[in-house]
Amino acid sequence: MASGAPPGTVEAVLRHSESVPEDTPQVRGYDFNHGVDYHALLQSYTTTGFQATAFGQAVKEVNSMIEKKLEPLSEEELKEENLNPLKREKSGCTIFLGYTSNLISCGVREPIRYLVQNNMVDVLVTTAGGIEEDLIKCLAPTYLGDFNLKGEDLRKGAINRIGNLLVPNNNYCMFEDWLMPILDQMLLEQNTMGMKWTPSKMIARLGKEINNPESVYYWAYKNNIPVFSPAITDGSLGDMIYFHSYKKPGLVLDIVEDIRLVNCQAVFAKRTGLIILGGGLIKHHIANANLMRNGANYAVYVNTAQEFDGSDAGARPDEAVSWGKIRVDATPVKVFADASLVFPLLVAETFAQQDTAFRSGKKHE
Amino acid sequence: MASGAPPGTVEAVLRHSESVPEDTPQVRGYDFNHGVDYHALLQSYTTTGFQATAFGQAVKEVNSMIEKKLEPLSEEELKEENLNPLKREKSGCTIFLGYTSNLISCGVREPIRYLVQNNMVDVLVTTAGGIEEDLIKCLAPTYLGDFNLKGEDLRKGAINRIGNLLVPNNNYCMFEDWLMPILDQMLLEQNTMGMKWTPSKMIARLGKEINNPESVYYWAYKNNIPVFSPAITDGSLGDMIYFHSYKKPGLVLDIVEDIRLVNCQAVFAKRTGLIILGGGLIKHHIANANLMRNGANYAVYVNTAQEFDGSDAGARPDEAVSWGKIRVDATPVKVFADASLVFPLLVAETFAQQDTAFRSGKKHE
Amino acid sequence: MASGAPPGTVEAVLRHSESVPEDTPQVRGYDFNHGVDYHALLQSYTTTGFQATAFGQAVKEVNSMIEKKLEPLSEEELKEENLNPLKREKSGCTIFLGYTSNLISCGVREPIRYLVQNNMVDVLVTTAGGIEEDLIKCLAPTYLGDFNLKGEDLRKGAINRIGNLLVPNNNYCMFEDWLMPILDQMLLEQNTMGMKWTPSKMIARLGKEINNPESVYYWAYKNNIPVFSPAITDGSLGDMIYFHSYKKPGLVLDIVEDIRLVNCQAVFAKRTGLIILGGGLIKHHIANANLMRNGANYAVYVNTAQEFDGSDAGARPDEAVSWGKIRVDATPVKVFADASLVFPLLVAETFAQQDTAFRSGKKHE
Amino acid sequence: MASGAPPGTVEAVLRHSESVPEDTPQVRGYDFNHGVDYHALLQSYTTTGFQATAFGQAVKEVNSMIEKKLEPLSEEELKEENLNPLKREKSGCTIFLGYTSNLISCGVREPIRYLVQNNMVDVLVTTAGGIEEDLIKCLAPTYLGDFNLKGEDLRKGAINRIGNLLVPNNNYCMFEDWLMPILDQMLLEQNTMGMKWTPSKMIARLGKEINNPESVYYWAYKNNIPVFSPAITDGSLGDMIYFHSYKKPGLVLDIVEDIRLVNCQAVFAKRTGLIILGGGLIKHHIANANLMRNGANYAVYVNTAQEFDGSDAGARPDEAVSWGKIRVDATPVKVFADASLVFPLLVAETFAQQDTAFRSGKKHE
Repeated sequence: MASGAPPGTVEAVLRHSESVPEDTPQVRGYDFNHGVDYHALLQSYTTTGFQATAFGQAVKEVNSMIEKKLEPLSEEELKEENLNPLKREKSGCTIFLGYTSNLISCGVREPIRYLVQNNMVDVLVTTAGGIEEDLIKCLAPTYLGDFNLKGEDLRKGAINRIGNLLVPNNNYCMFEDWLMPILDQMLLEQNTMGMKWTPSKMIARLGKEINNPESVYYWAYKNNIPVFSPAITDGSLGDMIYFHSYKKPGLVLDIVEDIRLVNCQAVFAKRTGLIILGGGLIKHHIANANLMRNGANYAVYVNTAQEFDGSDAGARPDEAVSWGKIRVDATPVKVFADASLVFPLLVAETFAQQDTAFRSGKKHE
Repeated sequence: MASGAPPGTVEAVLRHSESVPEDTPQVRGYDFNHGVDYHALLQSYTTTGFQATAFGQAVKEVNSMIEKKLEPLSEEELKEENLNPLKREKSGCTIFLGYTSNLISCGVREPIRYLVQNNMVDVLVTTAGGIEEDLIKCLAPTYLGDFNLKGEDLRKGAINRIGNLLVPNNNYCMFEDWLMPILDQMLLEQNTMGMKWTPSKMIARLGKEINNPESVYYWAYKNNIPVFSPAITDGSLGDMIYFHSYKKPGLVLDIVEDIRLVNCQAVFAKRTGLIILGGGLIKHHIANANLMRNGANYAVYVNTAQEFDGSDAGARPDEAVSWGKIRVDATPVKVFADASLVFPLLVAETFAQQDTAFRSGKKHE
Repeated sequence: MASGAPPGTVEAVLRHSESVPEDTPQVRGYDFNHGVDYHALLQSYTTTGFQATAFGQAVKEVNSMIEKKLEPLSEEELKEENLNPLKREKSGCTIFLGYTSNLISCGVREPIRYLVQNNMVDVLVTTAGGIEEDLIKCLAPTYLGDFNLKGEDLRKGAINRIGNLLVPNNNYCMFEDWLMPILDQMLLEQNTMGMKWTPSKMIARLGKEINNPESVYYWAYKNNIPVFSPAITDGSLGDMIYFHSYKKPGLVLDIVEDIRLVNCQAVFAKRTGLIILGGGLIKHHIANANLMRNGANYAVYVNTAQEFDGSDAGARPDEAVSWGKIRVDATPVKVFADASLVFPLLVAETFAQQDTAFRSGKKHE
Repeated sequence: MASGAPPGTVEAVLRHSESVPEDTPQVRGYDFNHGVDYHALLQSYTTTGFQATAFGQAVKEVNSMIEKKLEPLSEEELKEENLNPLKREKSGCTIFLGYTSNLISCGVREPIRYLVQNNMVDVLVTTAGGIEEDLIKCLAPTYLGDFNLKGEDLRKGAINRIGNLLVPNNNYCMFEDWLMPILDQMLLEQNTMGMKWTPSKMIARLGKEINNPESVYYWAYKNNIPVFSPAITDGSLGDMIYFHSYKKPGLVLDIVEDIRLVNCQAVFAKRTGLIILGGGLIKHHIANANLMRNGANYAVYVNTAQEFDGSDAGARPDEAVSWGKIRVDATPVKVFADASLVFPLLVAETFAQQDTAFRSGKKHE
């Protein structure tokens, strides 16, 4: 271009580019002129860019976990199974699912329960609230509210707010009525039968006692899926244990046995895949266990935290690679989004597509 | 509960709650045991909580806009139409769609084009990049990349990065070749025919010239949908106008005529609905125009910005209510998410459900 | 104004306002024409708006805690002190300080140590990393790095990344050498002396053993400041406990005794003030303990998390009010910022201003 | 370590690390035992990690700009000055300062005015609100409010909310009274004297008319500092221009002349430094102008936006490097924080330290 523009300007702006590699995918979104085909729409996310692309990559990563999980074990592997110190039979991929308390408070609980019920995941890690909120929902409902309801007004009516959800405090009173006899019984078993309680053993017992197919932990108990929650006292469960300690002191909850157990889930797995919804303890706990095997093979994070403050919550998967918690040859994915928006759709495009394969299950019979 | 716990503790923790109003919706997520029914899944978002609920509310809000939009006008309204100073016939709801440049760079462009092509929206507001990136995509593709590609390496190859997208600089060279003769012609018309150019007139001309049904602005031109971009010089269009000013000085782009025009879109509407994807100029410009009618009737924001820094980008709809930009009796919604994840699904659950109604259109013939 | 503008527009835009209450503070920032007076500059933050104002409010809130803390106890209160079940003498305000692991990895550790060393805070809550990173820093340094260093390269050299910090893995090897004999001894005391270990007892022992005035936990041990970390196995400490369990099995860490202890810190306090840096477990644990007293009297949160995803990390103080964790008549403050930017300045404007008062301490002698 | 731990676990966890380069800085925070020395405290931020380190790097980057700016020009450069097409004399570094509207609404306005008053910066870019809020503050004050005041209540009293700030609508009525005669005069000059108005010329005129040393634009006018705001109609200024267009139509505001002018600021600079507070238009506009010189030499961004949604607001400086907007050999810095918290401190550690040098100014006389 002939131009009187100041020297250098045209050269800077209109620099000629190298060509991109031939197989580089082009950006293209969904064309609704073809009608509303939801599956095709969600597949188009891969080439839509930004977090839509991250969602597409997460679908692919989870489907890789599932593919390995559903592969039949070899003869040799079946023999090794006899040495497996874990309660669940080994598969080609052990899937760790972690989630924060709020995801059980909200309706992400139902997709999580579906995964546990159908043996689609192998290890659960959550916080105290992630346990008790599921059990409480078997006793009384959680309601929709609004982020801007005033705390003072709510406290006067004893209505507890979790984001835009509301939990009447009566629900916790009902939980106390339900839990106290179980704590009595746990203490009795400790004192008379030498039972050594850990958070994971307690959760399994609670899952058995709730005896309700709406509960995540009922199914975890039924399916021998271990649930880890090292700080299980940090919530209503802790409140009740605190009160109980005044009535009948002496209950012990040991966290040493559980750290050994969660690490072994990673160590004795053929491969591991991590699906981590939210941040904090649950994210770190799963990643740390996978350091024991020199890194997970697959990983998907879904959360809204950012790395700039150096928090583990916001750390990208590549930070975990530096620690040996995710393998250097893995293709981990982070989706920056509220899991309530993303996780049900992720299940729809992955586990739920293999519903029949998982249900027929019983892989090596 | 009888308890030896310290005084006050039980009372604080186990306070009895007031009952919530009977019609308060309960939180419940999707049950995949019923199979993968995407529409039912997305409908379950309303009761899923957090941003899933916000998505459900956004679907409802947009469907309210559409319902009003598709209502036939009354006899009287049809008569008033003769006085309508705007180029498009009035409907029961004038929908403003705003979006930042990146949403045209990514695959959200295709759903936007679908809306424009099918006369589903009435006014567009975007930035310079939101114009040029659409036109450039008619000349050469944008590619998928990665957020972590190094700037230095990319600059050496003259590959420009937009998040996890890549645009070879050659695309901009092609754009220059395409645009320069149009600028020549625009200047000629100004100098010889008294044409007074504004950003919106220029965009209409570019839409006509690109003459490509893949382009958003081709359809905006065809359907008389005005496009406002007051800072249209802030991008590659500005670069080219800058270079052109050295070859052939004198082109004038007036923004006064456009502020009158955009305001009139709001003033002469029966009702207005705002759909704003992203923040900054485009968000403020649409809201400000709606102050002229004492507030929009409906509003949906989709963005990732937060209110804590006092930015307009992060301002919740309720801040716009204080200014009279959204009506005090409206039920505006903000979805906190990257629009690439949310907007295609929002279109799927709203406009695309009314595809036939819009296509039959021609409401008052 | 006489105007030919369309009807209603002028009325909507130029509506006359009610007057604001007379004592409403006006917005005004610092005038550097008066020179650089840092203290005056930080005081001007109160009227600067946005998060600067939040910082100013946080300074005020912490200074309220300190004022109550430094008030001499009454005769009657001194008598009650004899019944105080806690190890520390009561003051007019018990200050809980919580912080995530990264804040010990970074240089916020030194201000935290200053507060603990000088008895300015009363209860600490942190995660496993928040313990071990302090101890490890007594053995070998942490380095500055960059957020964008590649995980694969780092893992090859066994350099672990925490945001823009780097910790050579040798540091953890040194930690193992230091810790293993202590674990041996702890097990011995359990088996031979009936010692019942809890996370807080273990942390006190580690503080004693490190015997280094650079350590936060050395001073916590010296000053009888309890440190709670219910999931203390979730980190390098857990790794070492795991390895140790294969060499010498049997160590038990009970979390029931600690939940009673942390709750009692809140229950038996005259008033409580919360300073919580970061989110997740540590934020919830402190707030939950304060439910036992029907709410904290003062609270300051500093973190970057947002409420829209319903996470406890992002919950505003007003959500804690609904639960009875902060009092309805309190004036809690959240500062939306990385604590590394804000906390040292907050200490400068609060605790460090009362350095002499705290050092003279010995309040009721 | 001899261990019975499962094979591979110890090797994975206790891998020996390579040593870090000898000059790698160690992480260390401020020790308040040395007293409160604010300057030393802020200097310690460099080794504190996370965003504290980013702040330290930003201080260094801005001080590099200032050092170059204060260097005397060479003989040859002084000669070239005669060819300088710009109104301001050239220096060793032309500093572009960009900021969003909210930063003028809040008390960051005063530090900005200080920089403009003392000729410390050379080019300003802001939005319409960034202009009018400064002028309005000369007529009536802005007040402190709260993020959670209800929009409906505020609208009833015609009090407009900006984050936690409040602006009574009367302020805008006063602005209208002040502005209308100026618009009359501008139109007269256009019609009778051939004046061709642009946003930058209009802003200079407004700065002259306000004639108040509290105003940023008064000083910009006095000091010949150009102010660019291509979408100047997007705000109250636009509202008034809209109303005026009905009383006295015909005013033209051309944005072509301004794009040429802003680009020339970059093209004819010896070096350029960018200080950009906030995102959106102002961020892109400054970066784009610097593409014309193949990239800025120095850059500091301060904002809260994230890159994951592909927005320009959230783009890290390294994205601008790929476009040629920042030089490949530059050391740009982004501080993730609300500018109200960070910018006054940044000025304190940079420009205000050179107050005397700037005031003596008159460098080559």
